[in-house]
Amino acid sequence: MKIEILCTGDEILSGKTVNTNYSYMARKLQENGFDVHWGTVVGDDRGSLEAAFRQASERADVVIVNGGLGPTVDDLSQETAARAAGVELELREEWLEHIRSWYESRGRTMPSNNDKQALLPQGAELIDNPVGTACGFAVTIQHARFMFPPGVPMEMQRMMKEQILPRLIAMRGSNVVTKLKRFHTFGVGESRADMLLDGIEDIVPGGLVKLGFQSHFPQLEIKLMTQGENNDALASRLEPVVDAMRHRIGHYIVSEDDGSLEGEIIRELKRTNGSISVLETMTGGAVAGRLSGHLEGHSEGATADNEQLKWGLIAANRKESCHLVELETNQALSGSELVEQLATMLKTKSGSAHGMEVLAQWQVNGDSNEHGENEHGEACAEVFIGISFDGGSQSRSAQFPGSAKWIKLGITELALDCLRRCLLGIPIYERTDFEQHN
Amino acid sequence: MKIEILCTGDEILSGKTVNTNYSYMARKLQENGFDVHWGTVVGDDRGSLEAAFRQASERADVVIVNGGLGPTVDDLSQETAARAAGVELELREEWLEHIRSWYESRGRTMPSNNDKQALLPQGAELIDNPVGTACGFAVTIQHARFMFPPGVPMEMQRMMKEQILPRLIAMRGSNVVTKLKRFHTFGVGESRADMLLDGIEDIVPGGLVKLGFQSHFPQLEIKLMTQGENNDALASRLEPVVDAMRHRIGHYIVSEDDGSLEGEIIRELKRTNGSISVLETMTGGAVAGRLSGHLEGHSEGATADNEQLKWGLIAANRKESCHLVELETNQALSGSELVEQLATMLKTKSGSAHGMEVLAQWQVNGDSNEHGENEHGEACAEVFIGISFDGGSQSRSAQFPGSAKWIKLGITELALDCLRRCLLGIPIYERTDFEQHN
Repeated sequence: MKIEILCTGDEILSGKTVNTNYSYMARKLQENGFDVHWGTVVGDDRGSLEAAFRQASERADVVIVNGGLGPTVDDLSQETAARAAGVELELREEWLEHIRSWYESRGRTMPSNNDKQALLPQGAELIDNPVGTACGFAVTIQHARFMFPPGVPMEMQRMMKEQILPRLIAMRGSNVVTKLKRFHTFGVGESRADMLLDGIEDIVPGGLVKLGFQSHFPQLEIKLMTQGENNDALASRLEPVVDAMRHRIGHYIVSEDDGSLEGEIIRELKRTNGSISVLETMTGGAVAGRLSGHLEGHSEGATADNEQLKWGLIAANRKESCHLVELETNQALSGSELVEQLATMLKTKSGSAHGMEVLAQWQVNGDSNEHGENEHGEACAEVFIGISFDGGSQSRSAQFPGSAKWIKLGITELALDCLRRCLLGIPIYERTDFEQHN
Repeated sequence: MKIEILCTGDEILSGKTVNTNYSYMARKLQENGFDVHWGTVVGDDRGSLEAAFRQASERADVVIVNGGLGPTVDDLSQETAARAAGVELELREEWLEHIRSWYESRGRTMPSNNDKQALLPQGAELIDNPVGTACGFAVTIQHARFMFPPGVPMEMQRMMKEQILPRLIAMRGSNVVTKLKRFHTFGVGESRADMLLDGIEDIVPGGLVKLGFQSHFPQLEIKLMTQGENNDALASRLEPVVDAMRHRIGHYIVSEDDGSLEGEIIRELKRTNGSISVLETMTGGAVAGRLSGHLEGHSEGATADNEQLKWGLIAANRKESCHLVELETNQALSGSELVEQLATMLKTKSGSAHGMEVLAQWQVNGDSNEHGENEHGEACAEVFIGISFDGGSQSRSAQFPGSAKWIKLGITELALDCLRRCLLGIPIYERTDFEQHN
């Protein structure tokens, strides 16, 4: 099945918005065994849209058109689809009612230009959008089935997963199922992972298992993919490769499939009826944000609003960290001693089962900008991480070079990984590829 | 001049790599007064490449082809260009010599497959790449001029700036400049903004000023764009429209151009030598994260690692919020009274000039999932925001419906906007389109 993606909108065409919708859709398609063979970007312009619709309808079996379903005059997808399909637009009362009640349930009156969102080409199949007022739909133009998810990322993502992929799988008809096994790792870079996994695909002969990497710094996602007719057969085919993966990558695997690093931590805290309080500098609350489920990590599935995170504290610097937990700072302490003491004070004051202190500071050599970077955009930071628990405490330090943004991401991930390791009884020190080794 | 961008490569087509090269090139073109009118993505596949080259050559005056200049067998740009132009490939000795000395200067021997990078279509114009071994070039196919920068972002960026843009400006002959004015707003939805701004483009006759919207929930960016030959003339042309915009959208404008909501707050705090401490629930530290410059907001320009944010505290719930600032909770307080007291306690304990308390809780009707959402993926939350300052305190409440994620984004933005308004002496209550009005 030949699938194309057609992204519309001046914002995408002009480069103002990076086209992450395209990569999301293409990746989801590939994960489900579909290949995208062509991508097009055109603006909110009738001539370009018509030409793009016509050309796509000549090349493809399925065309996914993203964007242009909004209420304003430059939203032209329904109109263009109707013209290309040679039909009129018609008002879909059921969707107009849906929009009206959407506004009503929020105590608001529907603006009159929202009518436009209920106009669909005659005979179009309506595709539900449970989280917005833009109505998805599908029409056939020439021999190609055109499907229209909205441009708002959250609405598009939900419609892709719940509506469009199931339709494509039904259209494919054959019993091709795809099994994708994902490993989320922290600490190994792509080159080292590639070497560690040399030959792993050959455990299953015939090239039936494909290995892939996707880097979301500081995590590296490692994927195994296989296709066949039967889910159980695929699972047993993958089993020896999965075992080898776990053996070769070891503790660097922080979670699998839809799991996440923070999700593993919360699960372990729930299992032991535990709780955690965190005090952090430099990371601006990212450690607590990840644990609270508000800040998204690099995998789906973190649980929001858990009560395992008791206190999350952000202090501007070392002095304010001590001020916050009322630790007297006139002692001469090493970095490790200080973070272990701060973590212990935090555990006591908050009454949580674990306390974690993340104390980082820039190491400036010569001139630097407001982000602590030198003229090459490079910075370096030293971090001490202390964790306190019933009966003791431990700590780890690291030096991170790179841009300020990367350093903060690296420190956040390292802190979460130390906490995961501590909770699971794994040694918290293991060499990562991102820190500096003197 | 009609310009197209054609991006090649399986990594881009499959969505594995987000196509930031496209947005970089398109933005640079627009900043120099050129419009991109079509974008195409195809994989490393002879059939697709040839079709894409042919179609682009029929539509455009200039086609920028990105990628496919590497040394491996799946790099097909030179080969496809030669076939489309109806010429042979020829070895360019001067470039082969360049690659050889590039390797030599690094103490390495040129791998033999690098020869391929010196093969260009006969008669092609060589475009220098001072930072890599891939040779840029330009050829004419039909009536269109095709230009080929490499796919490595740093090499592409340098070639665009130093080689390709000057060639395009020379081709255009005249001097066109573009002026873009941006307004970042919080509180108005796109539909209402569209109505409020009805006819604003007509303040300047002749359709010379274009109005555009870009939604980054919960902010809405409103843009004015105009083109001409002279920067000063464009500024005076825009002036009455900018005045009308400020008048019609009013306090909903949180910042302009490269400014951001949090940037305005930090600027005001710096100006008054002030400081802020925040205690928040439900938002997982997002308010403090935005203020610390770690969490990126929806506009550029937030300053990282400022010391205006003294303490950022995250508590799991109301009880822990009181515990954190040691407020006795056995009093019967309204939501407003409670948050004003908490904000005041926080101000005192932290010693900062302002204290802000953001206390939110889910309003559950019937069954809900772990995110507080009902079966439609919808939730509702009530938030009380209290701000304490020298000599007093004030508060505001709101009810937000929507998905859990949107609610948290909305509460974060509302809290920051209340703080901005409080600092600037603007009333903190003004109706927003995102909250529920009972």
